[in-house]
Amino acid sequence: MKLTDTQIKEFETEGYLFLPNVFSAEEMALLTAEIPGLFAQNRPEVIHEKDSNAPRSAFYVQTWNDVFAMVARHPRLVEPGMQMLGSDKLYMHQFKINAKSAFDGAVWQWHQDYATWFNDDDMPSPRAMNIALFLAEANEFNGPLMFIPRSHRLGRLEAGHDVTTTSYPLWTIDNDTIKRLVEEGGIVAPKGSAGSMLLFHGNLVHASGSNLTPWSRWVLYLSLNRCDNAIRRFKRPTWIANRDFTPIEMLPDDCLITYARNRQGAAA
Amino acid sequence: MKLTDTQIKEFETEGYLFLPNVFSAEEMALLTAEIPGLFAQNRPEVIHEKDSNAPRSAFYVQTWNDVFAMVARHPRLVEPGMQMLGSDKLYMHQFKINAKSAFDGAVWQWHQDYATWFNDDDMPSPRAMNIALFLAEANEFNGPLMFIPRSHRLGRLEAGHDVTTTSYPLWTIDNDTIKRLVEEGGIVAPKGSAGSMLLFHGNLVHASGSNLTPWSRWVLYLSLNRCDNAIRRFKRPTWIANRDFTPIEMLPDDCLITYARNRQGAAA
Repeated sequence: MKLTDTQIKEFETEGYLFLPNVFSAEEMALLTAEIPGLFAQNRPEVIHEKDSNAPRSAFYVQTWNDVFAMVARHPRLVEPGMQMLGSDKLYMHQFKINAKSAFDGAVWQWHQDYATWFNDDDMPSPRAMNIALFLAEANEFNGPLMFIPRSHRLGRLEAGHDVTTTSYPLWTIDNDTIKRLVEEGGIVAPKGSAGSMLLFHGNLVHASGSNLTPWSRWVLYLSLNRCDNAIRRFKRPTWIANRDFTPIEMLPDDCLITYARNRQGAAA
Repeated sequence: MKLTDTQIKEFETEGYLFLPNVFSAEEMALLTAEIPGLFAQNRPEVIHEKDSNAPRSAFYVQTWNDVFAMVARHPRLVEPGMQMLGSDKLYMHQFKINAKSAFDGAVWQWHQDYATWFNDDDMPSPRAMNIALFLAEANEFNGPLMFIPRSHRLGRLEAGHDVTTTSYPLWTIDNDTIKRLVEEGGIVAPKGSAGSMLLFHGNLVHASGSNLTPWSRWVLYLSLNRCDNAIRRFKRPTWIANRDFTPIEMLPDDCLITYARNRQGAAA
């Protein structure tokens, strides 16, 4: 999947790019069927909300689930990263599903991902980015991702380590800075159905609100990094900040469909 | 201000009615200038969020602020209540400003107001309602009110007393019930600028999410009750559940403008 020059320009200007309905309903059915089982597992890679037993995130899923192992090598997800980052040697810095669980999904404070990659992991430069795949519909009610457009152009901003607001420590940005950025850029929240993709820059300031609805807002994140930009500090566990810098080898575009049909055939 | 038959029918069918831009910018400027000072007061009627010092609500403001004393008797707010409740003898059961403060505004769980009026205050019947006046813009990002349309038709639902989630105890509805109601009615979140009004039935199920934005989402609520439906239990303080059942006497429609211009004249 090649992005057009217009799409690349939009990404560079705004800091993000929304691509609706990239994966088919059949492909998404294969993925979403796995999710309740993933979140139900009792293992360190599955973390829960601070104030409830609801799942918050499942990390490093590509290493402990066959379907998501394919997703982590899917060309529709990886190739745009190669284009944007200007290298076909990328590795998976982080791979997680955020649950934003129905009724219990808590906030993610305003932050830049690169602030964490820099402060915690000593990633040399922001030549890394996020590719998000909606595993469920994101709508205006269930705590969609909120971006401050063009905020990536300011580079890495001052951040403080917030270890109390949620169950996941995060380098967050102070209110006065957010106020100033929002006055300049406003806020957007791209919405769409499962199978849509959202690419955003490692320095784009983002957050998401609570989810009080009966609709879980599952999102998969691939944090892709250039192999020549690998992290140099190993403070966080490898399932949060991967120490395996092997370049991703992409699978065929129809890998999920083939897998689903083979499995159906085997079961028949 | 008389509602039309179409508007009354919409309210009765959906459980709510949105009226954009009812108050002018000049009138709203008079009101909003008061708000920071109100929330800054150190008095029991001003409550704060559980996890921060941000204001959550200011109660009974009509008794301790001259401008809001007029608002509590304003015909554009009170007369629709008289129409809907079928009586010109209404009293103010509760009068509050909810702050949903910038950055810190916390959730209101799913609930019906009548559940609290019944369980805490022994209000005989749901012949009471809310008239909300937006004191700031409500948009998709700053935790707007969410309604489940038509949920008021089910009458009072089972509720549990939630005293832990936020700083304000509330009779809330369980997740299974909300899931069922949302499958039937969906969710709506009326949005609009300061000066807009939102009328809703005492049994309409509603909630609101967190506010991570730099935009406080102030809303004034008049909870109007028929004088012949007065509460019979005085468990909550009078500033939360008013024990003064004196019928509201409306002021002239231009009361706010006249006040603002007189004050300007005096200052000049």
